[in-house]
Amino acid sequence: MRRLNLVTTRAEQRRQTEARILTAARELFGEHGFDRTTVRMVATRAGSDPGLVMRYFGSKEKLFAQAASIPPDGAIEGSPAEIAEQLIAALTGKLAEEPAAALAALRAMFSHPEAAAEVRTAMTAQQRQIAEQLPGDDALIRSGVLGALTLGLVISRHLVRLDGFDVPPDQLMAIAGPLIEELVKDERAARHPSLAAPTR
Amino acid sequence: MRRLNLVTTRAEQRRQTEARILTAARELFGEHGFDRTTVRMVATRAGSDPGLVMRYFGSKEKLFAQAASIPPDGAIEGSPAEIAEQLIAALTGKLAEEPAAALAALRAMFSHPEAAAEVRTAMTAQQRQIAEQLPGDDALIRSGVLGALTLGLVISRHLVRLDGFDVPPDQLMAIAGPLIEELVKDERAARHPSLAAPTR
Repeated sequence: MRRLNLVTTRAEQRRQTEARILTAARELFGEHGFDRTTVRMVATRAGSDPGLVMRYFGSKEKLFAQAASIPPDGAIEGSPAEIAEQLIAALTGKLAEEPAAALAALRAMFSHPEAAAEVRTAMTAQQRQIAEQLPGDDALIRSGVLGALTLGLVISRHLVRLDGFDVPPDQLMAIAGPLIEELVKDERAARHPSLAAPTR
Repeated sequence: MRRLNLVTTRAEQRRQTEARILTAARELFGEHGFDRTTVRMVATRAGSDPGLVMRYFGSKEKLFAQAASIPPDGAIEGSPAEIAEQLIAALTGKLAEEPAAALAALRAMFSHPEAAAEVRTAMTAQQRQIAEQLPGDDALIRSGVLGALTLGLVISRHLVRLDGFDVPPDQLMAIAGPLIEELVKDERAARHPSLAAPTR
């Protein structure tokens, strides 16, 4: 009994330490960029030590990848209509609430190609997972365009702060939502004869 | 006669010097980011001197803004269909050829909020110019979504390098093109009854 408690406590402690390290990493990567953030700085801010950070996360790149990964949108699955619904809900959330930590990490990513490679891994994993459930030969590309649209909208709203984008998320989604519905379907060609005859 | 030649030559020299400075600035901002690139470094690489750089461009922020600005897509004007055609041609070009200098500047922008503000100015100028010609109450937002889609696709293809995006631009545009056509029109609500009854 006592031993079980001890084990539970250690696991819980590790979970809490990891969470503190990730929060510190997000803040520091956002403030100083990837290059100028050291494992030592992260450890200090998290009240931990560099050895533990390395043991838990493996390397600065891997720490960055976890810190920078936008939290998964939950399982995206079902029929195309259901997938569209889930993607629209997820994007609405990202537009509603500025994901400060993820944006900070995103900023750092763009200035550091190696870190971008780690983020690529996360983005393509979701891209593939969605593509597997979509109809059509070009499902992987459509799934990628879904990701690109999301990325572009989040950046345009929260980082670039485009004109007119400072509206309730529903107003943005009234325009972006139908595009998402369009992309999950495999009926675009039928409704867009211009695809068959591009020089109309 | 001699004097006219002299004037022409000076204007031409200034044009060439400015172009060299901008090229050097793009390279250095891309390599080192905004913070660690100095006006002195730019001047040295351009074979010029810091005083001249400041005289021609005003400040490091303004130099960055010019270096980072993606070349305008030319005048975007005409009917919605013509606007769609021009936007599709411009995006196809951006997907076809990696805009190395602009991408390098884009990277630097994300790590530097002040520089991002300058890029914002350029992006919103184009957004407004297009919105003025589009029908519909939400033209400014649709025009912004057009910009967001372009930004997301360029980043996804050239920086993130999403899966399946390494195809001829026409294959990407077969999917993105219809979205652009959709956005320039004001008929989406009619074709998307889900907008009127979101809980269908």
